[in-house]
Amino acid sequence: MPDSIIPTNLVPPLAPDAAAAALLDARYGAPELAPPAIWNDVLATLLAHRSVRAFLPDPVPSGTLATLIAAAQSAATSSNLQTWSVVAVTDPARKARLSVMAGSQKHIDQCPLFLIWLADLARTGQLAADLGAEVEGPQYLEMMLMAAIDATLAAQNAVVALESMGLGSVYIGGIRNRPEEVAAELGLPPQTFAVFGLCVGTPDPAVRTDIKPRLPQSAVLHHEQYDPQAQRDAVANYAERMHAFQTLQNLPQEDWARRVVSRVRSGASLSGRDRLREALANLGFPLR
Amino acid sequence: MPDSIIPTNLVPPLAPDAAAAALLDARYGAPELAPPAIWNDVLATLLAHRSVRAFLPDPVPSGTLATLIAAAQSAATSSNLQTWSVVAVTDPARKARLSVMAGSQKHIDQCPLFLIWLADLARTGQLAADLGAEVEGPQYLEMMLMAAIDATLAAQNAVVALESMGLGSVYIGGIRNRPEEVAAELGLPPQTFAVFGLCVGTPDPAVRTDIKPRLPQSAVLHHEQYDPQAQRDAVANYAERMHAFQTLQNLPQEDWARRVVSRVRSGASLSGRDRLREALANLGFPLR
Repeated sequence: MPDSIIPTNLVPPLAPDAAAAALLDARYGAPELAPPAIWNDVLATLLAHRSVRAFLPDPVPSGTLATLIAAAQSAATSSNLQTWSVVAVTDPARKARLSVMAGSQKHIDQCPLFLIWLADLARTGQLAADLGAEVEGPQYLEMMLMAAIDATLAAQNAVVALESMGLGSVYIGGIRNRPEEVAAELGLPPQTFAVFGLCVGTPDPAVRTDIKPRLPQSAVLHHEQYDPQAQRDAVANYAERMHAFQTLQNLPQEDWARRVVSRVRSGASLSGRDRLREALANLGFPLR
Repeated sequence: MPDSIIPTNLVPPLAPDAAAAALLDARYGAPELAPPAIWNDVLATLLAHRSVRAFLPDPVPSGTLATLIAAAQSAATSSNLQTWSVVAVTDPARKARLSVMAGSQKHIDQCPLFLIWLADLARTGQLAADLGAEVEGPQYLEMMLMAAIDATLAAQNAVVALESMGLGSVYIGGIRNRPEEVAAELGLPPQTFAVFGLCVGTPDPAVRTDIKPRLPQSAVLHHEQYDPQAQRDAVANYAERMHAFQTLQNLPQEDWARRVVSRVRSGASLSGRDRLREALANLGFPLR
């Protein structure tokens, strides 16, 4: 017997239209896909994603935050362990300190709401302690990764939710630059750490944001087995599309492959995150 | 100047109705939140999530897969590095082998489409090699985690997309039970690994699925700083709600906290994933 709360065909299907085709073309910087057979407002929301780094000062209403967290909690979580938490920061002084820790990103100062998503094995430890038990699982790399995945599933649902409501956001991986300082600032117990931040607010309409083209599907989608050769051709194709995009948007010409290589060239190019393993050990993750 | 492709207010707002309240109540197993001020079809899709483990044999049309991947690629990716890939498996013999590797989960055999999401630093290495450069970044824990986060953001967008189209799915963390065997089966190059699987298909309408209640918001949402005490009260509250849910659904009575503790009690309870660090080292992730 199917659950009666939700109709099976949840979202009204739409005829794929010119807007759908324009979104898909923008996502790949070229006509990449045939017109979709199915289209709806959820797909339009997902395809229209762009990172927002300029916000109006208007606060995010507290009722909106509750809706975002409900969306986040609706994401899958490994074995229903729910090994994540989130800290909502609105205090300007705290945001300013977190901004410095994350590499002085002005949108952290500017956004009205800064969400820090945590991998949280402390709750699991507390459950065990309250039952008089001890748990070894949180000592393993596996459980740190599982908790980080749980936090990411939750955060992405929140991002989809907020974009559907006309808000914008940008993920802040820089929160991993100085994990111990972030933990001290947020009063985190051992066995939790900040996986990433998320700036949230109303996009400033005066600042243009664009859908950034991604690699052709043949670079990321493999059938039955991984195909390295398909990737190489797709990457060459992407270089051309990115140059065309940069020209169209009056952006500086930059070669994607060279930029990627420069970002990950050495430990020193990781902005402090080359010591993440040591930092996590200090925060109660021995990563056995 | 805002981009002209997408209207600012993307999704038609709906008046929050009885269905919205029912979804929120189901998500928490109790009236937890005030009626939302904003509601739309995207929020309804997110809130209605449930894992699906019984599928009809109908194949997923290839055009649908392309739409799901376009949604996945629309998710944020750290510094646009795009360090993830996905392998789409439909061959029954390969699915059967992967099912055994993941702990013999029959829904892997049954689903028409099994997606395996990869953290992929091999592409980055190939970009560097093609430029005659060497990159050290992929040796670090940070970049493995970044790639796993990228893969997770992408996968969750695909899940939201497929649910909006009336399909169902379930994540398979068991794909990390035997990482080297999975890599061999999928022909993965070094510096890639399978973060999780995702069974996709049309839900079997004869098998009931339910929205599973989550912890009260006060357990996972902290304001300005982490509050361990709020969690403890919320967990006690959750225990009652889960018992009520189990009674209503004729499910065996099971205490959530005891179940969590039992799942993570020891390395041996991690189904082989206690050796994930060794397995990743074998797959080209030294995790410096």
